[in-house]
Amino acid sequence: MTDQSRILIKGGKVVNEDCSVISDVYIEDGLIKDIGLNLQVPAGVRVIDATDKLVMPGGIDTHTHMELEFMSTKTADDFYTGTKVKREMESLVREKGINSFKMFMAYKDVYMIQDHELHAAFSACRDLGAVAQIHAEHGDLVAEGAKKMLSLGITGPEGHEMCRPEEVEAEATQRAATIAHATNCPLYVVHVMSKSAAKVVRHARQQGWVVFGEPIAAGLGTDGTHYWHQDWAHAAGFVMGPPLRPDPSTPGYLMDLLANDDLSVTGTDNCTFSICQKALGKDDFTKIPNGVNGVEDRMSVIWEKGVHSGKMDENRFVAVTSSNAAKIFNIYPRKGRIDRGSDADVVIWDPNRTRTISAKTHHQAVDYNIFEGMVCHGVAMVTVSRGKVVYEHGALYVTPGAGRFIPRKPFSDFVYKRIKQRQLTPTAVDREPYGGVVVRLPS
Amino acid sequence: MTDQSRILIKGGKVVNEDCSVISDVYIEDGLIKDIGLNLQVPAGVRVIDATDKLVMPGGIDTHTHMELEFMSTKTADDFYTGTKVKREMESLVREKGINSFKMFMAYKDVYMIQDHELHAAFSACRDLGAVAQIHAEHGDLVAEGAKKMLSLGITGPEGHEMCRPEEVEAEATQRAATIAHATNCPLYVVHVMSKSAAKVVRHARQQGWVVFGEPIAAGLGTDGTHYWHQDWAHAAGFVMGPPLRPDPSTPGYLMDLLANDDLSVTGTDNCTFSICQKALGKDDFTKIPNGVNGVEDRMSVIWEKGVHSGKMDENRFVAVTSSNAAKIFNIYPRKGRIDRGSDADVVIWDPNRTRTISAKTHHQAVDYNIFEGMVCHGVAMVTVSRGKVVYEHGALYVTPGAGRFIPRKPFSDFVYKRIKQRQLTPTAVDREPYGGVVVRLPS
Amino acid sequence: MTDQSRILIKGGKVVNEDCSVISDVYIEDGLIKDIGLNLQVPAGVRVIDATDKLVMPGGIDTHTHMELEFMSTKTADDFYTGTKVKREMESLVREKGINSFKMFMAYKDVYMIQDHELHAAFSACRDLGAVAQIHAEHGDLVAEGAKKMLSLGITGPEGHEMCRPEEVEAEATQRAATIAHATNCPLYVVHVMSKSAAKVVRHARQQGWVVFGEPIAAGLGTDGTHYWHQDWAHAAGFVMGPPLRPDPSTPGYLMDLLANDDLSVTGTDNCTFSICQKALGKDDFTKIPNGVNGVEDRMSVIWEKGVHSGKMDENRFVAVTSSNAAKIFNIYPRKGRIDRGSDADVVIWDPNRTRTISAKTHHQAVDYNIFEGMVCHGVAMVTVSRGKVVYEHGALYVTPGAGRFIPRKPFSDFVYKRIKQRQLTPTAVDREPYGGVVVRLPS
Amino acid sequence: MTDQSRILIKGGKVVNEDCSVISDVYIEDGLIKDIGLNLQVPAGVRVIDATDKLVMPGGIDTHTHMELEFMSTKTADDFYTGTKVKREMESLVREKGINSFKMFMAYKDVYMIQDHELHAAFSACRDLGAVAQIHAEHGDLVAEGAKKMLSLGITGPEGHEMCRPEEVEAEATQRAATIAHATNCPLYVVHVMSKSAAKVVRHARQQGWVVFGEPIAAGLGTDGTHYWHQDWAHAAGFVMGPPLRPDPSTPGYLMDLLANDDLSVTGTDNCTFSICQKALGKDDFTKIPNGVNGVEDRMSVIWEKGVHSGKMDENRFVAVTSSNAAKIFNIYPRKGRIDRGSDADVVIWDPNRTRTISAKTHHQAVDYNIFEGMVCHGVAMVTVSRGKVVYEHGALYVTPGAGRFIPRKPFSDFVYKRIKQRQLTPTAVDREPYGGVVVRLPS
Repeated sequence: MTDQSRILIKGGKVVNEDCSVISDVYIEDGLIKDIGLNLQVPAGVRVIDATDKLVMPGGIDTHTHMELEFMSTKTADDFYTGTKVKREMESLVREKGINSFKMFMAYKDVYMIQDHELHAAFSACRDLGAVAQIHAEHGDLVAEGAKKMLSLGITGPEGHEMCRPEEVEAEATQRAATIAHATNCPLYVVHVMSKSAAKVVRHARQQGWVVFGEPIAAGLGTDGTHYWHQDWAHAAGFVMGPPLRPDPSTPGYLMDLLANDDLSVTGTDNCTFSICQKALGKDDFTKIPNGVNGVEDRMSVIWEKGVHSGKMDENRFVAVTSSNAAKIFNIYPRKGRIDRGSDADVVIWDPNRTRTISAKTHHQAVDYNIFEGMVCHGVAMVTVSRGKVVYEHGALYVTPGAGRFIPRKPFSDFVYKRIKQRQLTPTAVDREPYGGVVVRLPS
Repeated sequence: MTDQSRILIKGGKVVNEDCSVISDVYIEDGLIKDIGLNLQVPAGVRVIDATDKLVMPGGIDTHTHMELEFMSTKTADDFYTGTKVKREMESLVREKGINSFKMFMAYKDVYMIQDHELHAAFSACRDLGAVAQIHAEHGDLVAEGAKKMLSLGITGPEGHEMCRPEEVEAEATQRAATIAHATNCPLYVVHVMSKSAAKVVRHARQQGWVVFGEPIAAGLGTDGTHYWHQDWAHAAGFVMGPPLRPDPSTPGYLMDLLANDDLSVTGTDNCTFSICQKALGKDDFTKIPNGVNGVEDRMSVIWEKGVHSGKMDENRFVAVTSSNAAKIFNIYPRKGRIDRGSDADVVIWDPNRTRTISAKTHHQAVDYNIFEGMVCHGVAMVTVSRGKVVYEHGALYVTPGAGRFIPRKPFSDFVYKRIKQRQLTPTAVDREPYGGVVVRLPS
Repeated sequence: MTDQSRILIKGGKVVNEDCSVISDVYIEDGLIKDIGLNLQVPAGVRVIDATDKLVMPGGIDTHTHMELEFMSTKTADDFYTGTKVKREMESLVREKGINSFKMFMAYKDVYMIQDHELHAAFSACRDLGAVAQIHAEHGDLVAEGAKKMLSLGITGPEGHEMCRPEEVEAEATQRAATIAHATNCPLYVVHVMSKSAAKVVRHARQQGWVVFGEPIAAGLGTDGTHYWHQDWAHAAGFVMGPPLRPDPSTPGYLMDLLANDDLSVTGTDNCTFSICQKALGKDDFTKIPNGVNGVEDRMSVIWEKGVHSGKMDENRFVAVTSSNAAKIFNIYPRKGRIDRGSDADVVIWDPNRTRTISAKTHHQAVDYNIFEGMVCHGVAMVTVSRGKVVYEHGALYVTPGAGRFIPRKPFSDFVYKRIKQRQLTPTAVDREPYGGVVVRLPS
Repeated sequence: MTDQSRILIKGGKVVNEDCSVISDVYIEDGLIKDIGLNLQVPAGVRVIDATDKLVMPGGIDTHTHMELEFMSTKTADDFYTGTKVKREMESLVREKGINSFKMFMAYKDVYMIQDHELHAAFSACRDLGAVAQIHAEHGDLVAEGAKKMLSLGITGPEGHEMCRPEEVEAEATQRAATIAHATNCPLYVVHVMSKSAAKVVRHARQQGWVVFGEPIAAGLGTDGTHYWHQDWAHAAGFVMGPPLRPDPSTPGYLMDLLANDDLSVTGTDNCTFSICQKALGKDDFTKIPNGVNGVEDRMSVIWEKGVHSGKMDENRFVAVTSSNAAKIFNIYPRKGRIDRGSDADVVIWDPNRTRTISAKTHHQAVDYNIFEGMVCHGVAMVTVSRGKVVYEHGALYVTPGAGRFIPRKPFSDFVYKRIKQRQLTPTAVDREPYGGVVVRLPS
């Protein structure tokens, strides 16, 4: 009988973000113990043949897995509400291992916080070494837009997008980035859904602002023309906020920016509702529960649209599905890299197989799939999580409750090295572009 | 004795925004009576020889003259305060001849209004046919920035700019334009001072948004490096809000956009304080009275930097100093054009003379001039206002109180034709770029 | 019996590029004699009621009419071939009234000229006061692209676009603009067909380069997805060079830039071939005759996509269909404006009627129409050309040979004022953006 | 006596492009043998204390060192001359270990090759798996510009820049990128000197084109205002091609793009001439030998302007000075990374020391230094090359002829994975942005 806590992955191509190398990978007690050609390992070890396969770090879904994983005990604690005082944030960071806080510029009268609150929250994040996450839509405009659409008699799912067109997302993204830069706080923009918002992120980064943008599987794999679909149920299945965009060149554009490191990481914002649940908004799009599927198909969609299309290579794929998230949230190289000493989270990927996404075959409870019918090159054959095989030959072997919260330290190097350096020279950096302006520095 | 109410301007080149023609101009009773070659006029008419001179419509200073002129009786009535109800605006438009309202996004706790108030005010402007004017700076960021600078020990005039760098202006411009577009209201951005903000205006216009940007003489003729000048009084003389920018390529850039119709009109925001008044802020830049000169030198500065430099021709000069303002504020072609029936507001301009701007020779009460030493090609020889010579050979002949309020009608064609057309098809316009999306129109 | 040489157009709204005014228009002997309310005219004059109609200057089709009109006697004489010596150009400008020359960067081994020839030709144009027109596609890349497509087995009309994607057009546009700027020569880019090329024109203008871009009716009214149409004849009907683009947002984008004066004038490049003629390229797209219809529907298409959509107003419509062309080619205000003394070229336009474009009803000899089925708001009711009614109630009254060549003078003010000013200060202009660099001027 | 072939670097922070870790590094026989905390090593090993120091991969100067290193025996063999037949390139790649070819668009009548030759050369590179390097300036415009400047009497060093302003560089960059994209060949743009050219590279990359841009130390550390310096010798010292740019915001801008991965690697284009040599061009700037120093100060300048300024962190510094070059030229991870099995090329860097660059103290033979007086934070303490200490405490220990040519394989993964994938689907990639266009694929 083979020892399930010892695994040798043999003959595969190990793919990290910087390069790929043919190599064996030996796993023991949840960790990667050794890497190399023709590794000598103890008898009884389970051997998985990975010839002609890619061996990649397990994907980190910044927008579902991480929240589930990191917030299991105290679910809403990294949502900033505007009345949370800095002391409470401090406690979460120092005692609970939370190193990011999510804030909403949308959802007026519910979560939406004002700019001066953003300023205070961002300043606190910077002092604590946390990453500020932002849902960027102009809450007032969304609310007014919804009123206008309903008053025009537009009650269907298309109204969901029409009431909050992409400039409403872009404006908020620009505003959040400006406030973050003013406070010297790193910003992480969740679910970048439009070309306009993505351009704002790109422009901010080109100026040297510490901003990260996260497109999601839905935005990379499909578009908002579905909101105009004749079948209400079909259209409603795509409703999420910010919405998918009807401009059909959006997914390709977002992928171009992701390939080029203008956008940094991918999530899913996975949050599924059945058609019955969606039907709450049959006569009023504002009542349709917001959320789409994505978690299960994220890797396939990004591989298909990103790697198979020739836009990115397998190494960039690892960066955007795994390594960058690990760096931003300060768990790299324990996560996000296949290396001696890293956690044994591994995906064995066959780039030559294809599968067709369908609600008929997926493992999710909902009765539709927004990627229905998409043919994907590249299929996960085996998934290893902390040293254990959790997926193999199409079957899941997950023990409920096996997810574990990983406390994360603040002041991630990847995010904060530049921030700290800038704190030392609070004014000099911005002056330099103007070439030769002498700044009177504080004595 | 010549009849001062009848003037023949002879042999000049008449410059309108569309073309220039050698022609006589005959003025009678405050109006332009005739235009043509070798006009036959009554005896006793005063004849002004304009050979080799340009005969142009009188400049309209959108940011000083007009406010003085149009607001003489009820000075502050077109400043929107956030509590003004729509009914009061309606009265101003319908009974008082006011067709624009100015709002502030800066000056926290004083004038600053919130986004939802902007939304309401813009909606009211659109219904009334008025133009929404905006002072675009993010008020919270300015206030926090000032605190930060003072806490760093930066108390001099340079702190005025450093506390509100150009991204603070650009952000507010973007936000205002987005809200204006959402409400289908025309927007007029006063004193565009930075490359970043100008780019926002340009981009909004390229998307088809009805937005006008106004650079001012100070921003076109000098820059913010003066805030770092060793002489405090010199530096303080340039303090205004939004500030001049230390990037020395700013003036040339703004002029390029003005030449190219990305920016539309020029003003001065003329508001002068003596050095003694400025000294209130000797130890704290936030206490320096905001304001610079400009009204007297506006035409010269724009001619020098715009026309003499080869960036624009004389026709575009007329457009940006006169015609466009008249169109936007709905007094064209009565103002802003030299044509039969127009008001006799005329400048006779010698493009071959030069003069040097100096506080020693200017007609303003203040003891400095921000354009000190600038050599300007192009000099006004004679100025005629409503049929009377008010300036000639360097001498002013203005009767105090001679300014007259001109009631303006709402729904200026230049501004509102597109706005009205879009009201008819509230959703179709924005859908079109996405090529082929069929929108369910309201029944 | 009414006098056909005297026409009173009564009660219409006269639309010029700067404003619209309700006014009568009186025409005599081919010229506009008077404009005003309630004009008194001689008895026997023909009166056309234009109540609720627009009275606009006749359209100038820069790309068909003008070539026909101006080149009738010596058809190909303003095409620059690379061996034409400066002396011959001089003769055409000074003796024949030609003031523009067209050059090709495409059509390798036929018309294509090299960069150093462009440099020489542009320099000659500048000295002569002519406008350089350019067909901008990289000839080598088009030729190589065609070879590649055929080698891949792509022989259908879609290969026509695929072999010369829009970056091939954009590159040549950028190159031509750079050479034109280096020689201080005004450049006119004919048939701007893609977003990429239009961006190049826009960017050049924003930097202050003297460049004009001309989109055509086909590019503003339809797109290149038709090349992939299942019906070969349908697809082939859209073949022209540069091709229409498959990006469906192209037409809306070009119209946005045209509305915003980033593009200047509209043409049609009208050149029609029947389906039989097109069939020459049945098995090889490189053999399909290049050309589409457009001249008859130009005004309707631009009104529908530009004015009815709310993107531009009626005044801008006049600018882009008439006034700007007249200015560039130096026949303004004789053409391009409704004013005392102008040529009586007038269109009476009913903005409230609609018509449907179709090959079944058009006046052209070809058996298809690329705008087939387009419903257009805005219909020409009457057209007057040099004082004579040539179109009325759907019927044409044109005498063959009635077209007249209008000799044009060089050094158009609209184009050359800035050029001349820059010649005076050959280096200073470009230095200014760098703020403060002192240039050693030639003594 | 210590064994010089075995070195233990103890207690430093090992900096790779992906992260930094406190670790010992053990070197044996020219290779890195082990990395880890508290490594056990044989007795007699030389120990270098690196506490509080950074241990980084040795810098790879793409533009001097590599050429010297890789071209020592056959100096000019990777310069493409236009007559080189594909067969000869093939031999260089397959037999000599050359995997890049440099081509010139400038230097008319000497090196300049035509576009159709570029097309052929790029196609050959792609087939062979080589990287096409380009010197991007429009040769005709440079030649004509030089004539013009001399004719205007501008003979000084400023004429060198004025005859070839940045649009001349940008145009050629755009053209090269377009041709490279058309041939699906990777492009490497050497010495990107201007904001305009850098924007072209950035834009190309954002569209997904495989283009790499290389700024050099001179362009990142100083600017072209020096060409206007009163002292001719000073000005002439900065002459190189393409020239440094007079826009003083250029260096900061290039650094922003380098930090953001819009530009990829840094070189020096080191090529020094003494003042006497430069004096050949005393009366004619075209005769000034082109070249500046840089190789010795490259790391310091980039650290100062990049890392000390807060624009990039130490990991990005390693990427742009070492790892990316190694990847592009296919010698990674043997070079460009500190890892088990890599070559022992190591720099021990003290980020807390400062030094002042000066011709008085540098190790170069020339009598001036373009970075004269620049205070740099960050100083190299020890440099190890292939396991030997070659620099220590300010002294060089280099044996002449110790440089070794490293044969490089073609088809670098970093460059060619995407290229190969795109070859498989030659047309599909470009179609996708247009959303839904069905392409008839070759059967």
